Amino acid sequence: MNEILRKFNKRADAAQSLLCVGLDVDFAKVPKHFKTKPDPQFEFGKWIIDQTAEFAASFKPNTAFYEARGARGWAELKMTAEYLRANYPDVVTVCDAKRADIGNTNHGYVAAIFDELGFDAVTLHPYLGRDALDPFLARKDKACIVLCRTSNPGAGEFQDLQVEGKPLWQTVAEKVGREWNANGNCMLVVGATYPDEMRVVRKIAPEMTLLVPGIGAQGGDIEAVVSAGLDSNGKGLMISASRSIIFSDNPAAAARSHRDEINAAREAKHAAD
Amino acid sequence: MNEILRKFNKRADAAQSLLCVGLDVDFAKVPKHFKTKPDPQFEFGKWIIDQTAEFAASFKPNTAFYEARGARGWAELKMTAEYLRANYPDVVTVCDAKRADIGNTNHGYVAAIFDELGFDAVTLHPYLGRDALDPFLARKDKACIVLCRTSNPGAGEFQDLQVEGKPLWQTVAEKVGREWNANGNCMLVVGATYPDEMRVVRKIAPEMTLLVPGIGAQGGDIEAVVSAGLDSNGKGLMISASRSIIFSDNPAAAARSHRDEINAAREAKHAAD
Repeated sequence: MNEILRKFNKRADAAQSLLCVGLDVDFAKVPKHFKTKPDPQFEFGKWIIDQTAEFAASFKPNTAFYEARGARGWAELKMTAEYLRANYPDVVTVCDAKRADIGNTNHGYVAAIFDELGFDAVTLHPYLGRDALDPFLARKDKACIVLCRTSNPGAGEFQDLQVEGKPLWQTVAEKVGREWNANGNCMLVVGATYPDEMRVVRKIAPEMTLLVPGIGAQGGDIEAVVSAGLDSNGKGLMISASRSIIFSDNPAAAARSHRDEINAAREAKHAAD
Repeated sequence: MNEILRKFNKRADAAQSLLCVGLDVDFAKVPKHFKTKPDPQFEFGKWIIDQTAEFAASFKPNTAFYEARGARGWAELKMTAEYLRANYPDVVTVCDAKRADIGNTNHGYVAAIFDELGFDAVTLHPYLGRDALDPFLARKDKACIVLCRTSNPGAGEFQDLQVEGKPLWQTVAEKVGREWNANGNCMLVVGATYPDEMRVVRKIAPEMTLLVPGIGAQGGDIEAVVSAGLDSNGKGLMISASRSIIFSDNPAAAARSHRDEINAAREAKHAAD
């Protein structure tokens, strides 16, 4: 377990939270009064961050929504990352960029996401294999979060294909858990909408922290997620909600409510074990 | 076959070229005299474009190298795309971004790459499945280039896994070729380093245009690629070289040489058939 994973666990204990607040800052949905400011996506994100940080173990801006506004969006993404680092240095920052190219090219993304933007962690596609992702995996000081079982309804089209008697997502979990994680800096994405798969991933990688999108707007069941995915230390999950927090009438209350619901499920699981 | 694929074929005929010039504009390798200019990645790219356009059917900037310089790089990527559109409107522009997120999020990437930057085509990861990629696939006016068999040495780690008696990359080719291509706007990436696989993909998708990276610095064999991948009209391949052109002492000569070598292989194949 590397320094980013330790940072996450420390924060999870301090804030009594496994919640990841997803900054899916869709410009069309940003409230009007932020749009009159010079850096609207940053200003809205900053407001969300200040409202919800107390309840968050991590923040996860998604690059797609910033890139939609081009260089201006990228500048505001960087302002957001810098704001987090300066004001909430104990909270883990995940760049939800879902990148992966061949090795030579990935050096560009490593520079962009870990150094230029300064994020703690990044999400990655597995399809090109380990050799391609080496520039990310070699970064002992950062975390690499590999897509395993995603939360979308059609995730199974490839991820459920049977490979030597087991689904492809399981092979991804095994390879990342047993072969790619030499630096203790790997995580896996397992959607909250697939708790049965999460239970299998937890067995394959007992100590790995999982990024779990899909609660909130996507409808994942928090109790099922926690029951299936909690590790033996009562952590090991970074449970992400985005739209249901940031576009709610009261983001602080929504974040607190998600955190509390997760903690109630942790206590129920602890009591049952 | 949609308008972008028709544009490619028209350009391939007019320029007598199947060459795609890859703009892997690694800032560290940009010649010093460009670095004194205000927009060095754009200025270098512009110079390469002007040197090589005569021999190119398409240009393919890779986002990783621009993102490494953050918002400034993004601004220069946009300048590059705009320069291509204004000065070489007949040449196809591919954004080699290798994106893919869940559907709601992909709307951000669609806006970024097709609308904000204005590219003709984008490269995409298949792992999340068709439902996730729908916002891209729905764009009848653009092309969606799905990773099938990539050119990196370790590509086989997942892509070669046997799924119901055939490798995963073959299942990707079948799904994209037969199910995802309702708008006639799909292409597949097949690395030049894997000509045997390319022959199979050509059988599965006889009329699909393939993006073929891996000649030049990566060592793919042009003759083998052309023999395996040419369609029945003597086209169907967008053969990409990047480092071997843009960082050569004479980019124009390197591009011409690649184009001519491809054309010689096309003629040899035509004579042999």
